[in-house]
Amino acid sequence: MNQCKGVIITGKNTMTVSSQCPVPEEPCPTGALIRPLIWSPCTSDAHLCATGCASLPYLLGKAVGHEMCGVITKVGCEVRDFKVGQRVIVCSVMPVWRSLEAQDGMAKQHQDNMYAGVDFPDRGGSFVEEYEIRDADMNLAPIPEGVTLEQAVMVPDMMCTAFEGVSQLAPAFGSSVVVLGIGPVGLMAVRAAVLHGAGNVFAVGSRQVCFEVAKEYGATHLVDYHNEDYLQQIVKDNGGPVDGVILCGGSEKELGKGLSILKKGGTLVNMSAYFGGSPIEIDPSVWGFGYGDKTIKGVGCRGGRLWMARMAKLIACGRVAPEKLITHRYHGMEKIPQAMNLFLNRDRGLIKPVIYND
Amino acid sequence: MNQCKGVIITGKNTMTVSSQCPVPEEPCPTGALIRPLIWSPCTSDAHLCATGCASLPYLLGKAVGHEMCGVITKVGCEVRDFKVGQRVIVCSVMPVWRSLEAQDGMAKQHQDNMYAGVDFPDRGGSFVEEYEIRDADMNLAPIPEGVTLEQAVMVPDMMCTAFEGVSQLAPAFGSSVVVLGIGPVGLMAVRAAVLHGAGNVFAVGSRQVCFEVAKEYGATHLVDYHNEDYLQQIVKDNGGPVDGVILCGGSEKELGKGLSILKKGGTLVNMSAYFGGSPIEIDPSVWGFGYGDKTIKGVGCRGGRLWMARMAKLIACGRVAPEKLITHRYHGMEKIPQAMNLFLNRDRGLIKPVIYND
Amino acid sequence: MNQCKGVIITGKNTMTVSSQCPVPEEPCPTGALIRPLIWSPCTSDAHLCATGCASLPYLLGKAVGHEMCGVITKVGCEVRDFKVGQRVIVCSVMPVWRSLEAQDGMAKQHQDNMYAGVDFPDRGGSFVEEYEIRDADMNLAPIPEGVTLEQAVMVPDMMCTAFEGVSQLAPAFGSSVVVLGIGPVGLMAVRAAVLHGAGNVFAVGSRQVCFEVAKEYGATHLVDYHNEDYLQQIVKDNGGPVDGVILCGGSEKELGKGLSILKKGGTLVNMSAYFGGSPIEIDPSVWGFGYGDKTIKGVGCRGGRLWMARMAKLIACGRVAPEKLITHRYHGMEKIPQAMNLFLNRDRGLIKPVIYND
Amino acid sequence: MNQCKGVIITGKNTMTVSSQCPVPEEPCPTGALIRPLIWSPCTSDAHLCATGCASLPYLLGKAVGHEMCGVITKVGCEVRDFKVGQRVIVCSVMPVWRSLEAQDGMAKQHQDNMYAGVDFPDRGGSFVEEYEIRDADMNLAPIPEGVTLEQAVMVPDMMCTAFEGVSQLAPAFGSSVVVLGIGPVGLMAVRAAVLHGAGNVFAVGSRQVCFEVAKEYGATHLVDYHNEDYLQQIVKDNGGPVDGVILCGGSEKELGKGLSILKKGGTLVNMSAYFGGSPIEIDPSVWGFGYGDKTIKGVGCRGGRLWMARMAKLIACGRVAPEKLITHRYHGMEKIPQAMNLFLNRDRGLIKPVIYND
Repeated sequence: MNQCKGVIITGKNTMTVSSQCPVPEEPCPTGALIRPLIWSPCTSDAHLCATGCASLPYLLGKAVGHEMCGVITKVGCEVRDFKVGQRVIVCSVMPVWRSLEAQDGMAKQHQDNMYAGVDFPDRGGSFVEEYEIRDADMNLAPIPEGVTLEQAVMVPDMMCTAFEGVSQLAPAFGSSVVVLGIGPVGLMAVRAAVLHGAGNVFAVGSRQVCFEVAKEYGATHLVDYHNEDYLQQIVKDNGGPVDGVILCGGSEKELGKGLSILKKGGTLVNMSAYFGGSPIEIDPSVWGFGYGDKTIKGVGCRGGRLWMARMAKLIACGRVAPEKLITHRYHGMEKIPQAMNLFLNRDRGLIKPVIYND
Repeated sequence: MNQCKGVIITGKNTMTVSSQCPVPEEPCPTGALIRPLIWSPCTSDAHLCATGCASLPYLLGKAVGHEMCGVITKVGCEVRDFKVGQRVIVCSVMPVWRSLEAQDGMAKQHQDNMYAGVDFPDRGGSFVEEYEIRDADMNLAPIPEGVTLEQAVMVPDMMCTAFEGVSQLAPAFGSSVVVLGIGPVGLMAVRAAVLHGAGNVFAVGSRQVCFEVAKEYGATHLVDYHNEDYLQQIVKDNGGPVDGVILCGGSEKELGKGLSILKKGGTLVNMSAYFGGSPIEIDPSVWGFGYGDKTIKGVGCRGGRLWMARMAKLIACGRVAPEKLITHRYHGMEKIPQAMNLFLNRDRGLIKPVIYND
Repeated sequence: MNQCKGVIITGKNTMTVSSQCPVPEEPCPTGALIRPLIWSPCTSDAHLCATGCASLPYLLGKAVGHEMCGVITKVGCEVRDFKVGQRVIVCSVMPVWRSLEAQDGMAKQHQDNMYAGVDFPDRGGSFVEEYEIRDADMNLAPIPEGVTLEQAVMVPDMMCTAFEGVSQLAPAFGSSVVVLGIGPVGLMAVRAAVLHGAGNVFAVGSRQVCFEVAKEYGATHLVDYHNEDYLQQIVKDNGGPVDGVILCGGSEKELGKGLSILKKGGTLVNMSAYFGGSPIEIDPSVWGFGYGDKTIKGVGCRGGRLWMARMAKLIACGRVAPEKLITHRYHGMEKIPQAMNLFLNRDRGLIKPVIYND
Repeated sequence: MNQCKGVIITGKNTMTVSSQCPVPEEPCPTGALIRPLIWSPCTSDAHLCATGCASLPYLLGKAVGHEMCGVITKVGCEVRDFKVGQRVIVCSVMPVWRSLEAQDGMAKQHQDNMYAGVDFPDRGGSFVEEYEIRDADMNLAPIPEGVTLEQAVMVPDMMCTAFEGVSQLAPAFGSSVVVLGIGPVGLMAVRAAVLHGAGNVFAVGSRQVCFEVAKEYGATHLVDYHNEDYLQQIVKDNGGPVDGVILCGGSEKELGKGLSILKKGGTLVNMSAYFGGSPIEIDPSVWGFGYGDKTIKGVGCRGGRLWMARMAKLIACGRVAPEKLITHRYHGMEKIPQAMNLFLNRDRGLIKPVIYND
């Protein structure tokens, strides 16, 4: 096992660039080694840092990161479809395709460690100089011609998560959707809802930088949740409860708020992670007392080559411009902690930062 | 408006047979008048009585009841498919088919008053001597030849609810289902799960009378929830978390229990009503922290002629023997309060009572 | 019964403006009378004319037409949501919502006469001066503010059909779709596929006027079927067989062509009508010999207020610009035959004509 | 490469037991070697023999067969879940789980050679003394305790195909299903339809031996297709066109017959293979002229461990008794040609033969 540089979490709110991140000399037979070209930190990386990896304790002292694109430097002997020198999008979750979960259509739920970009748990995530992936043919996707690195690095989590959520919501043509929380995943969900044929799309947030992108992505209503009656206003503007709700952020009470404006027979898709330790609380009256045919889905990121390739295709066809999410650009791994701090400091101008590996 | 006899709730835990229940002389153009032949009280009727109609206050002083079969005594001039003298199953919920909800596939969620068998809110439910239904062609179903009154009266709520829930769960062939709570709806859900091709079907309850029916309906495992580790035992016996959970009873904490034994990617169908005023609480860890692809559906009874006719067809074809639910039989409307008291007194031998109108 | 002017078919290739089309003085209780503001003839109207109503013989001597918007002049006593003076979109098919088909989710397939805009078969279609609709609350939709008449008249058939077809195809985000035949419904299908998140969208036709709109609607590839190897070219450009095929025109052999470029596991949606009397022929080899999991759907127009309102919402939100289809504009009912002749003469500049009633 | 005995096709209507079928000494890393305990020939094996492998020419001179259960004799070094001595069901189709088709939910459509039980095309099928499977963890399933070999060998094709077809038909509770053709797959489809909650189930065939099993499996109507008006009779007995049709046999004209009795909005599932070289012909009038919302699915066998395990679970739970299909029992590989001849001679007493390897 060789060693390379990587960004590791060393405790609550502390991280550093280590030069002792393990990486093998050769990839496994179906695997590949990848040299990152661009990284993007995620709220969940920042959350791991803020809590000292409380929710994934084994990551302490290991590399973080799960949004990365790079160039292949070595391929295993059984890899069929990729070769050295190819630019690729790297999966943020690592489905195991030879699993019963995969046979059940839930490959994404069989993996060693969701949301950490961790294919080898003993090594950690992808904010490293060289990264091994186990199943290259299944969990990498080529970056299509005409798609930039900045666009491509929005694929593994931002697009793969938001489009999966909207895919499971499956809004009918012309139906109404509320996106509660318009951080980067929420904004992508706005775009995905528009691209799935929604009519009214309410983008609920508070920061101008996000509202602007929401508008460019096709939101019909920009809603500030600081207005006390914003929920009632949505129902009023929509002419009744909405057909679908997408939850991308907020506390354990947010889910009940979402249900309160959802029509009977409607669906709420949750894409928030609840690590706070408090229970989710739902007042039965907003859920039709249990028999209002309101469906609640807790959706995880969908991984794998096909899904990433389809996301990249949407970019290549001009349907999505994910680079609009990027508000901060850095160069060099050493800047990753600075980029992560934007989240920890709740920078009001932040949507997504990227760091070029140059 | 004429008057007839009916069972009315007069306050907390009090009901009486009144002779002043309103009924029109003639039905509306698309409606019909029905003389009941058999009634069956439901937990929810008992609940209304116990609380003095706290959840549906307008029902105080009016007739209760929503499970009834009878014979048509008059039909409106626009009724096409039914005629006087025909024996019919009467819908327990009253979908309005000329509604936008109906156009959206959710007719059942457009109605004046769910679960009370109330087609004319000013009059109340169907524990009366003569009952008017507004849309006979759409909300009545003929009782097929060979189907008994006892079987037929299990259709409007017991079968229409349980089979709708399982229909929305849509268990795959050979998959595993847990039914938490095996009162009459839970038992019907056991049968429905078997009839939808489930493999392992766990029936979770505590009373022998219910276990016996569960076994006859095809449950593979009878589970007593008084065993402290019954949830772990289910997972062990199943060889892992289950594919689907159906919730038919229990407190606001039951939903979390159901999620705790559900596989990632699985579905929980709730058929309990939550009127206790307490919030439903879910520990995020049992819900995959919000991104485990566990779906929660809060399913209401499906009404309408087609669904009732399909339920009746299942009986006629010998697929379901709903009369096995009936543990108590009475004769005469005067016995309805006595039957209702079985619920209020938590009679351990009770599954469902019926009262013949003779 | 009063009489009014209307365009009637009198034989093969002959039509005339008659002044003896029947219209009642008062609408039925749930109905409404509508004075047309704009009409649009359809290929199927032209086909009726060309064949002397061979496929719907009872229409001979009666009014044709099923794409119309107008203003309400009278409403029946039971109409709840519409009033005199309101501008409305009129359903092109007339679902009967109080039917068992409606309870089965197939309201559109219960109607007296599909595709003829005929609510009262004894009177004919909507190219008349005054038109009665039976169920105003269910089969009319308001024209939203900001939506023009030209846009609105593209809703009843062009949008309601094409968006229904794509809705049933349900292309996955980033997946590939081929639209075979880009007349007006095909072009709308192009737009609908883009709006349902498709990546590659191949528009297959031959006329420049259509290719231009296809491009504006988001088609990624414009394919001329006069190129001998156009089917192979599609597969090559797509990097393999496509995920979905939409068929909007062509002979009885076209379906086989569509299947030949469809991936195993893919879906073909047919929106063509086959009235030629010849059988549809499919070579088993293009259908995976019967076990290739290729699904064939023969989709009809979806009607009803909700669907039309959702289409109109898409226009109001700026998602669809259906007026791009309109290549010919006329004024006065007398011009309808001239507009119909554009179809009969196979005018190469034609997509859709409209006729204002002024 | 070692050699072992196997049944090979040597030309039209000729087969022989060869002792030169290739088998490796060691399985591949994820593979296993299996010694058959029981085989069952299938119509498609017989068809290969009758035509001299016309549809799969490379099989000429190689082993046939794809329905087999056996005992594991060796496992590759990467096999996790199986060990030597275990009794297993062997997949009849060989999905490749590390494929883009698998990521698209269509693993079954990525394989070297459908329906031939051929995991290594250069070697042929499983009517051999020793058989190698490539991906043991994914394409084998244990035989559960209490399940006999005769039951188990009905899983790989008979159950895996029929239950997949019915799963895709997804009949609603109480709906009506017609099974056209009640050979062994059709009979399994009868049982699967009953187990998916169908009401009326029409079993259409001609042989008494099949009708008897159909009845035991829950068919409500036994229909002899020699009656000239059997299709009309089905519609009459059902009270209208049926909700679903399953096609398991017949000529290229059978599909049109199935459509002719299918309701608008219904689904026909085809499980026949069309190798005759003639086109499938559909009169448009039975398909609603292309817009009657009649869906046609051409469904292939679903493979893989999970599906087979679920089928086996249904047997273990007592939901299905597939051994009822077995009409002929033999012992010793040498009897396989005799068993195959039952098909070639159209033995009227035949449903399925099995051959024990003892």
